[in-house]
Amino acid sequence: MIVIMKPDATTRQISAIIARIEDMGLKAHISEGAERTIIGVVGDDRAAADRDSLSVMEGVERTMAVSAPYKLASRQFHPEDTHVTLGNGKMGDNKVLVIAGPCSVEGRDQLLEVAQMVKEAGATALRGGAFKPRTSPYSFQGMGEKGLEILAEAREKTGLPIVTEVMEPDAVPLVAKYADVLQIGARNMQNYALLNAAGESQHTVLLKRGMGSTMEELLMAAEYILSHGNNRVMLCERGIRTFETYTRNTFDVNAIPVLKAKTHLPIVADPSHAVGRWEYVTAIAKAAVAAGADGLIVEVHCDPEHALSDGAQSLRPDKFVKMMNDVRRIAEAVDRTA
Amino acid sequence: MIVIMKPDATTRQISAIIARIEDMGLKAHISEGAERTIIGVVGDDRAAADRDSLSVMEGVERTMAVSAPYKLASRQFHPEDTHVTLGNGKMGDNKVLVIAGPCSVEGRDQLLEVAQMVKEAGATALRGGAFKPRTSPYSFQGMGEKGLEILAEAREKTGLPIVTEVMEPDAVPLVAKYADVLQIGARNMQNYALLNAAGESQHTVLLKRGMGSTMEELLMAAEYILSHGNNRVMLCERGIRTFETYTRNTFDVNAIPVLKAKTHLPIVADPSHAVGRWEYVTAIAKAAVAAGADGLIVEVHCDPEHALSDGAQSLRPDKFVKMMNDVRRIAEAVDRTA
Amino acid sequence: MIVIMKPDATTRQISAIIARIEDMGLKAHISEGAERTIIGVVGDDRAAADRDSLSVMEGVERTMAVSAPYKLASRQFHPEDTHVTLGNGKMGDNKVLVIAGPCSVEGRDQLLEVAQMVKEAGATALRGGAFKPRTSPYSFQGMGEKGLEILAEAREKTGLPIVTEVMEPDAVPLVAKYADVLQIGARNMQNYALLNAAGESQHTVLLKRGMGSTMEELLMAAEYILSHGNNRVMLCERGIRTFETYTRNTFDVNAIPVLKAKTHLPIVADPSHAVGRWEYVTAIAKAAVAAGADGLIVEVHCDPEHALSDGAQSLRPDKFVKMMNDVRRIAEAVDRTA
Amino acid sequence: MIVIMKPDATTRQISAIIARIEDMGLKAHISEGAERTIIGVVGDDRAAADRDSLSVMEGVERTMAVSAPYKLASRQFHPEDTHVTLGNGKMGDNKVLVIAGPCSVEGRDQLLEVAQMVKEAGATALRGGAFKPRTSPYSFQGMGEKGLEILAEAREKTGLPIVTEVMEPDAVPLVAKYADVLQIGARNMQNYALLNAAGESQHTVLLKRGMGSTMEELLMAAEYILSHGNNRVMLCERGIRTFETYTRNTFDVNAIPVLKAKTHLPIVADPSHAVGRWEYVTAIAKAAVAAGADGLIVEVHCDPEHALSDGAQSLRPDKFVKMMNDVRRIAEAVDRTA
Repeated sequence: MIVIMKPDATTRQISAIIARIEDMGLKAHISEGAERTIIGVVGDDRAAADRDSLSVMEGVERTMAVSAPYKLASRQFHPEDTHVTLGNGKMGDNKVLVIAGPCSVEGRDQLLEVAQMVKEAGATALRGGAFKPRTSPYSFQGMGEKGLEILAEAREKTGLPIVTEVMEPDAVPLVAKYADVLQIGARNMQNYALLNAAGESQHTVLLKRGMGSTMEELLMAAEYILSHGNNRVMLCERGIRTFETYTRNTFDVNAIPVLKAKTHLPIVADPSHAVGRWEYVTAIAKAAVAAGADGLIVEVHCDPEHALSDGAQSLRPDKFVKMMNDVRRIAEAVDRTA
Repeated sequence: MIVIMKPDATTRQISAIIARIEDMGLKAHISEGAERTIIGVVGDDRAAADRDSLSVMEGVERTMAVSAPYKLASRQFHPEDTHVTLGNGKMGDNKVLVIAGPCSVEGRDQLLEVAQMVKEAGATALRGGAFKPRTSPYSFQGMGEKGLEILAEAREKTGLPIVTEVMEPDAVPLVAKYADVLQIGARNMQNYALLNAAGESQHTVLLKRGMGSTMEELLMAAEYILSHGNNRVMLCERGIRTFETYTRNTFDVNAIPVLKAKTHLPIVADPSHAVGRWEYVTAIAKAAVAAGADGLIVEVHCDPEHALSDGAQSLRPDKFVKMMNDVRRIAEAVDRTA
Repeated sequence: MIVIMKPDATTRQISAIIARIEDMGLKAHISEGAERTIIGVVGDDRAAADRDSLSVMEGVERTMAVSAPYKLASRQFHPEDTHVTLGNGKMGDNKVLVIAGPCSVEGRDQLLEVAQMVKEAGATALRGGAFKPRTSPYSFQGMGEKGLEILAEAREKTGLPIVTEVMEPDAVPLVAKYADVLQIGARNMQNYALLNAAGESQHTVLLKRGMGSTMEELLMAAEYILSHGNNRVMLCERGIRTFETYTRNTFDVNAIPVLKAKTHLPIVADPSHAVGRWEYVTAIAKAAVAAGADGLIVEVHCDPEHALSDGAQSLRPDKFVKMMNDVRRIAEAVDRTA
Repeated sequence: MIVIMKPDATTRQISAIIARIEDMGLKAHISEGAERTIIGVVGDDRAAADRDSLSVMEGVERTMAVSAPYKLASRQFHPEDTHVTLGNGKMGDNKVLVIAGPCSVEGRDQLLEVAQMVKEAGATALRGGAFKPRTSPYSFQGMGEKGLEILAEAREKTGLPIVTEVMEPDAVPLVAKYADVLQIGARNMQNYALLNAAGESQHTVLLKRGMGSTMEELLMAAEYILSHGNNRVMLCERGIRTFETYTRNTFDVNAIPVLKAKTHLPIVADPSHAVGRWEYVTAIAKAAVAAGADGLIVEVHCDPEHALSDGAQSLRPDKFVKMMNDVRRIAEAVDRTA
């Protein structure tokens, strides 16, 4: 941390800051400039409260963080890529893994059909929601445990591991019983009770970036899970909120190379939510892989016109097969497979 | 809902849309323009899935919602202002009510001192966090139940009702045992399990707008609570995420008159989080009341330099007293009291 | 400026940075921390290129600015409030001044009628566009010089000074011939040729914040004008772009106290563009004055249903009179007049 | 356009709307729903003022646009891709064209060296600014006409066409004399006088999206140029403003497939400004081409540590060569060349 003093700060004020820093068990390093004094804080100052409380002391203009606030998630702390096992593959390894399936489990036949289809097209895992976070209380809220049973049956039939959302801490054991990967949705990225429960479960987690959250906040949310000794975490970029209205969200493709530089965790892209219309999903899937994404999570539905959720952004089977072929070519162009 | 067909949509495609609308138990109303056909849907189409699924049918350019997706929260459905009892006052009534206190309960002495102080300055309720949602797992996470006990003691001593955050559905009964108002924080605005638990509790709720959430999503989150027959809901504007970096958030003062027009629920403003620096809190508190806010929730700390959280945006006692006086004058200028 | 070295930066890399800093005529101040070295740069490093170029040197993690990049606009440089003469008033002085009138000059009768009306209601200046920046080339583009002549006639009749937009450097002399205040619109906030021309003209300028611009960029745009020795500059907050869709823009009320702290220039608020619907304009006008705005600029039209631009956000005469009365009461509640 | 009436609108109010629509020379089509009446407007209602003015009439809840407000830029109006000649290539055709060079022309030797280098690496055109829009009046503002002369010399030596920015209408003839492509920068996207001058010049234009502008506004800005009969327009996505702070801007990769669907004009991506750090430029360049971009514009500098502007985001020669090779492979993976 660095403390920027006001140009007119007094010696007494500066001494008070130094004393306060030493109280925290840290060391102060003074730098007197032409215009003002700057105080460097030496030591581990990760607790944000310290920075916040120093900033209100007299004579202080503002404080600035120097170190990243995350540690376990950082590449500096853990230089090698983390690979997270997903079925027969490893997310973060050379092969770009695709997780595909419907937004919601709507019934046994629907799910088994789409599961078989995405498997044949080359998907590594099956997605499908049994518990659905819906903006409206009047919308379909998911099939609940019945949906989880259907997902488990689909795994048995196809061998595909299951990725499904968990929405509350209490439900973690239940969902973990059926699912291979616990998905934490964008709306719950900072649901700390849920992050803690997922961390404690030692189950694999797919953590989606909140639509109003920075990359740093995503890494801090991952830090919650990692701090329980659970390293099986995949991060997911799924688009952020901006002023643009032609698309549902703005896919932050920058986040892919930037997160790959900042963290060792694998990065998955969700082009379906990122753009919100099936016509554009394949283009964004290709862009994500070109930018370095380790995996994709894509909504596929055999009958989007009758989907109970997210029909507008779901690929039909033939479009999904085409997407897989297109993505495979891009993967090869970046020396990977898919 | 309105379905906008593509200019080159065929009669067959139009017929398919009409058939699908009738399948949903709704009626279609056709309007043939010079350039394209537009189909109005008559009936209750609140379930978003319908709109989404229609939008992928052949020949459709896009669909547009006509009615608001919320009902119980809307002023159209409930024209009179809802008043929510808070201690001796009623939020939503003529008097602007102020909820004040520290970000976190840090200890018995700290809380009792600040409670007494804010009471004397004219606050109607005491805020203080026992369970804290913190961006970093390494930051102070709150005192937990011990903090709730201290809050209850403060209520006994001062008579001020308690407003405190609840972060997970399971904790609702515990927090409701001690608190008068369950606060649902910005990060949990779309934590539907928590919204449902708060709704079922029939306890008073202060629902904060998510930093990346629209007003419509805030109203839809309220609708979750209201749909359990719990009408004791206060909405809170606390600033949204924008590109501006001089302030922690951007206070959306527009939301105050707009929400007052759209909903019957009382609107509370949180100037502390909205601007993020104590120097600017009073100006924003005044602006909020001038714009029509029914109440304020403000962070106050007797020793912000040593606060364990949010020190930078907490008012010291003397500044809080001044804010109360300033706000009172503004309240009178809009024919209210404070 | 501060240079944050990477944790693994070598002594050679650090020496290279120091040499480069000294090449720039600045001094380096080294601070060796536990984890990394930080280099403070002493001297005037306002030219952003320096910071940018240092940031690409080997071993550098990033650079951070310490001083504000603006100088003439800063309150540190010029502690007293600047007052800008506007007709009989001074913007920035105790009285809150209101600039009112139609979005566009549409004709002689229209303008003279509205000018008389706003004068009677207490406005200090008349606004009206003769050159209009319109999103669409098919929309009404303004009456041009004929509009300026009508504005001049309205001034003669009412005594109200004229505020009108200038859109290109070449037009500055023409507009300055007729107008008392050159308005530089949001879309032109970073039109540097125009800023320079306005600066050179020594005419009073009302500079609107760009809808995608930070407060710092607004101050830097003002710095362009001030650097020509023209201090007659008023800044205007008129709403920024966010993800919210219920309003045309999001009025950044935070900007009012923050800008008042950072700069000596007067701050005007434009509630009409900020919210985009006449129903909400008065609430936002009151909020702006409560937050400390020195003035308001408001769109008023005698027949908004037939306005050629911005009808939806224009106040009718009776609503404007009510707004003036409401604003006057708020002004008194903050120890000002209006 | 569609007019949504309030649920309690009276027959008289509805009749007044119909009369007003007919006054405009358009036809009204009434649709009476269970809850409210909706009025479809048949005819060309592109002038936004009409929609705005209707929206303030009594009984109206709001109005919604149905048709896109742009015409000449739309793919509906002009279904085939427009190809814009650039040196030996055609932007919009199969080959992905790369425009490369320094942010600013800083001197003869600097420019000729980099020009030769980018040509050898496979660039199709040379970029370089002679007139620079800088946030700070204290930053390097460009070499002016001398810079244009150096650019012309570089063209003579290398055969590469020149892309350079023009910042004011008056300078269009001068810049057009030296340059092959007039670049209109992000800050000037809605500088209508400049758009009109560029349109009238009949010169090729590269129009960059404003950092706070929607895709629709970009298309409307293009419409200004096209309305002068000048179809030689390339659009450029260069990143938008969001709340994310790890990158300079957020590259809106969604815009590439969406704009390709909405318009016939070629789409160029600027990964340098979009991400703001050279380390990430290649990843974003690859993503853009994978998503369907027709071209790239990239900042390259032989000595970024001493660049007078944008050093942090400029690629060194060896990195640029690598980028070209990487992009070529992606281009092939989408059945193009580069």
